[in-house]
Amino acid sequence: VAVGNDTLPELLPVPGVRLATVSAGIKRAGRKDLVLMELDEGATAAAVFTRNAFCAAPVTVAREHLGTSAGKPRYLLINTGNANAGTGASGLEAARACARAVAATADVPDSLVLPFSTGVIGEPLPTALIEAALPAAFSALSADGWTEAASGIMTTDTRPKGCSLRFAGGDREYVITGIAKGAGMIRPDMATMLAYIATDMAVEPGLLRQMLVDAVETTFNRITVDGDTSTNDACVLMATAAAGNPPLADAGSALYPALRQALEQVCLVLAQGLVRDGEGASKFVTVDVRGGRSERECLDVAFTIAHSPLVKTALFASDPNWGRLLAAIGRAGLVDLDVNLVGVYLNDILIASGGCRAESYTEEQGIAAMAPAEIVIRVELNRGDSSAAVWTTDFSYDYVRINAEYRT
Amino acid sequence: VAVGNDTLPELLPVPGVRLATVSAGIKRAGRKDLVLMELDEGATAAAVFTRNAFCAAPVTVAREHLGTSAGKPRYLLINTGNANAGTGASGLEAARACARAVAATADVPDSLVLPFSTGVIGEPLPTALIEAALPAAFSALSADGWTEAASGIMTTDTRPKGCSLRFAGGDREYVITGIAKGAGMIRPDMATMLAYIATDMAVEPGLLRQMLVDAVETTFNRITVDGDTSTNDACVLMATAAAGNPPLADAGSALYPALRQALEQVCLVLAQGLVRDGEGASKFVTVDVRGGRSERECLDVAFTIAHSPLVKTALFASDPNWGRLLAAIGRAGLVDLDVNLVGVYLNDILIASGGCRAESYTEEQGIAAMAPAEIVIRVELNRGDSSAAVWTTDFSYDYVRINAEYRT
Repeated sequence: VAVGNDTLPELLPVPGVRLATVSAGIKRAGRKDLVLMELDEGATAAAVFTRNAFCAAPVTVAREHLGTSAGKPRYLLINTGNANAGTGASGLEAARACARAVAATADVPDSLVLPFSTGVIGEPLPTALIEAALPAAFSALSADGWTEAASGIMTTDTRPKGCSLRFAGGDREYVITGIAKGAGMIRPDMATMLAYIATDMAVEPGLLRQMLVDAVETTFNRITVDGDTSTNDACVLMATAAAGNPPLADAGSALYPALRQALEQVCLVLAQGLVRDGEGASKFVTVDVRGGRSERECLDVAFTIAHSPLVKTALFASDPNWGRLLAAIGRAGLVDLDVNLVGVYLNDILIASGGCRAESYTEEQGIAAMAPAEIVIRVELNRGDSSAAVWTTDFSYDYVRINAEYRT
Repeated sequence: VAVGNDTLPELLPVPGVRLATVSAGIKRAGRKDLVLMELDEGATAAAVFTRNAFCAAPVTVAREHLGTSAGKPRYLLINTGNANAGTGASGLEAARACARAVAATADVPDSLVLPFSTGVIGEPLPTALIEAALPAAFSALSADGWTEAASGIMTTDTRPKGCSLRFAGGDREYVITGIAKGAGMIRPDMATMLAYIATDMAVEPGLLRQMLVDAVETTFNRITVDGDTSTNDACVLMATAAAGNPPLADAGSALYPALRQALEQVCLVLAQGLVRDGEGASKFVTVDVRGGRSERECLDVAFTIAHSPLVKTALFASDPNWGRLLAAIGRAGLVDLDVNLVGVYLNDILIASGGCRAESYTEEQGIAAMAPAEIVIRVELNRGDSSAAVWTTDFSYDYVRINAEYRT
């Protein structure tokens, strides 16, 4: 189950990127579980990774290779079915071996290959199976490979996630295409998600990294399913330079606003797509906090609501439980919060104000507001001009079932 | 359901305290839902309350009256079935009206009465029903009323919680008795719990307060069920002075160590009893973190594990999922954590070390360790001499059911 009936849109090829999705038989035979991405020489890339101290071996290697290559990798190799996390020194060697095998086939230095893994933690990565599948992957590389790759990186996802845009910059059009997987362990600071986004524009590595960090901050870092973070998250932004524009070097460039806007749009669609497909999700909930003294305190309130199991189980029950919302706001740690100024809305229905149920509110209104699969919880703090929104899901029986049974 | 078969022990009378438990018909007729406690003149009391900014009306009034009475209240009135929270100005007036009615009957100033409420949020408190039940409550006051009161303060609790000790101090014996209710919304900083503890020793109000704060810090503030906190929590410590000892004024008093130890013991039994009866609990889990640089960082790791829905659902499934434990430790925010030094134990089985599954570990050992209803997760950080433990439960289907259906 997932919220809404989103289907994968047409994913436009990005000149300078070729993809292949093949079967290495990592978890079971026949499943397409290995994605290879090839970038033109001259392409730049930037990435953000999990901040979990127990990061997976491929995260360590990809971060290292991205640095060694000065932000100009040529290949990305992504496997599902095995996270190569919690695998110690031999896991690190396995990640390096995969990169080495791709590099040998392509005749490039190892450091131009970035490895990524997602799947079960703590099992040895079957490098021999992956290496054996590489010839087929190289043969299958195609500019039209995005759609298949969107499925190839999935784990417990119920559907592929992708987004593609053409956008105008100066006197011509550029393209940006992204795919992502997620489903569980999603929260700020990069949870178990992998996302790969490419544009044909030329962008210097330093600026590319800054643009990615900025875009992630207001999109992927504002979604949460269960408050847990994973060992393997990575979000990669690639700029192939195939369009032939003079490379963007700083935010003053004429092309900067167009790319930035397109990138944020793609990241937002992908991030919200991850929430809609969150484990056991039956609701897609926007928590929109306004009138705070700072964006930080708005986020504190929004995440306290979004992480509250009591709020999330009420959402699952379609129960307009404003008392649990007030209790969550009250423990978000805001200095000198005057609860009498706080207003809480479900969609556009005022449900609580002055520290209690709003006089105008009726239970029928609340039940009607909670019925749809998409709900907006709006909190007006009335103490400043800042605002922030986060996106989350409810807590259902299915969440418990999926996570209690995942390993069996 | 609850973990273990604990039955309420014999609760010893505390000279100087009389209790009555009667039915006011707050939520349904016949249910005993009102507890009155009477203290001898000269008794002292201290309390800690919820830190939630949306605190309930009775919390505001009880805090105010405790101050006005200089820590020497004569009556406590506790109702279940209605939290008188999220009730605005009229709720405040309702709490004052209850205190006023008790004071009028007893012919004492209003400020010598502390009101407490627990139950549904956002419904008006039926003060007329409560006032009508007061004559019966006053008639029923008895030193033997602890056992009935332990049941009278329950909400979704499945069983009453209490603890009683005799302890030696100097050349004579003293007594300490406590009762508590909780079940959901339990976490640090005083969650939905009410606890009332009394001793017949004489203690000055200032010292009494310090002793309570210290005892709560290492007991009630180290339990968590779901990370939520409530609007109504309160923990009250009363010293009746009926034993006739010279009042304890500071920690240098000869009687101080004996009372402190007895108080911590009672608080620990009550706090752990709340966790064992946590909503939907099928496991009682001790998370014991050792070898940290500070107690604070040990608590950060312990609570990150205890709050992780992924860890909690694995506990529900009796799944020795060391990967989720490592991931939780890794995101606890410790500075310069060397994951290679971290050891994770289930009971006394080493399951993870060096960032991966321990070589000596077998899945059979893990499954055996997870089978009992009581489990110890021990984390050895190996970077300092501090340690801290917290207590929690698993996340079950029943947790979702109870909290999705609570209002219906």
